[in-house]
Amino acid sequence: MMIKRSTLFACAALAAVSFTAPAMADEAGEIKYRKGVMKSIGGHMGAIAGIFKGETGNQTNLAVHTQGIAALANITGSIFPKGSDFGETEALPAVWEKPGEFSKAVKMFQDAAAKLNSAAMSGDMAATGAAFGGLGKTCKNCHENFREKKK
Amino acid sequence: MMIKRSTLFACAALAAVSFTAPAMADEAGEIKYRKGVMKSIGGHMGAIAGIFKGETGNQTNLAVHTQGIAALANITGSIFPKGSDFGETEALPAVWEKPGEFSKAVKMFQDAAAKLNSAAMSGDMAATGAAFGGLGKTCKNCHENFREKKK
Repeated sequence: MMIKRSTLFACAALAAVSFTAPAMADEAGEIKYRKGVMKSIGGHMGAIAGIFKGETGNQTNLAVHTQGIAALANITGSIFPKGSDFGETEALPAVWEKPGEFSKAVKMFQDAAAKLNSAAMSGDMAATGAAFGGLGKTCKNCHENFREKKK
Repeated sequence: MMIKRSTLFACAALAAVSFTAPAMADEAGEIKYRKGVMKSIGGHMGAIAGIFKGETGNQTNLAVHTQGIAALANITGSIFPKGSDFGETEALPAVWEKPGEFSKAVKMFQDAAAKLNSAAMSGDMAATGAAFGGLGKTCKNCHENFREKKK
């Protein structure tokens, strides 16, 4: 995908903005972007929990959420760029200090999300429920080891 | 997709739960589910805004977000079932009192989301920016006419 820095966009929801090269993105912006991605993942997780608990009649929406999480999981490795460890973030230095362990944790999340989506697409609800539990564990793993404890 | 009410799931993130038929879903559960969907949409919108503003270097993630919103837009009509107008919700009675107008507003959102995704997939960033602005207008349209004013 070609991105021209000079390209201007007419955005009603935003001020007119121009594309800036990645190098110009700053810590605060990256942290904000990361929170957007995490918010979207959280929304999907809550929605799936609601479906499994029978709180909503929208069981047929399940695949939208499992596909959504799988796609977001695949970009999760990209939302912790170097330099985005200062500011309004709960991400711990361990993300950047232990890149091998962090990558492994992200991979576990991605694999679990893919497994959940495959199970949901197959229609095997018992397998889907088990896979959702497995996915929850990978969320917890990262949040316990690479995120500040919630006060 | 067959759903057996008797199917049990082992969810680590949740207590073990059983599927309940749609009729057993209640207002509070539907409102919670709706908030999950909206949260996910909001996360994607914020992420796209960050990409357009150059706040993040993750421009290549754009399609994940536009695909995500398009998929969520397609289920937006389903997240306002009858009876989910009481409780902790900001949705106005107009959603249910003016179903024709509401459906039209949802359709506008869906069309705009599909247009944004098509533009993003084509790689034409000027068209994508314009489509993002168009999508923002359809969000605003619903939020102004079918949601309580923010205090």
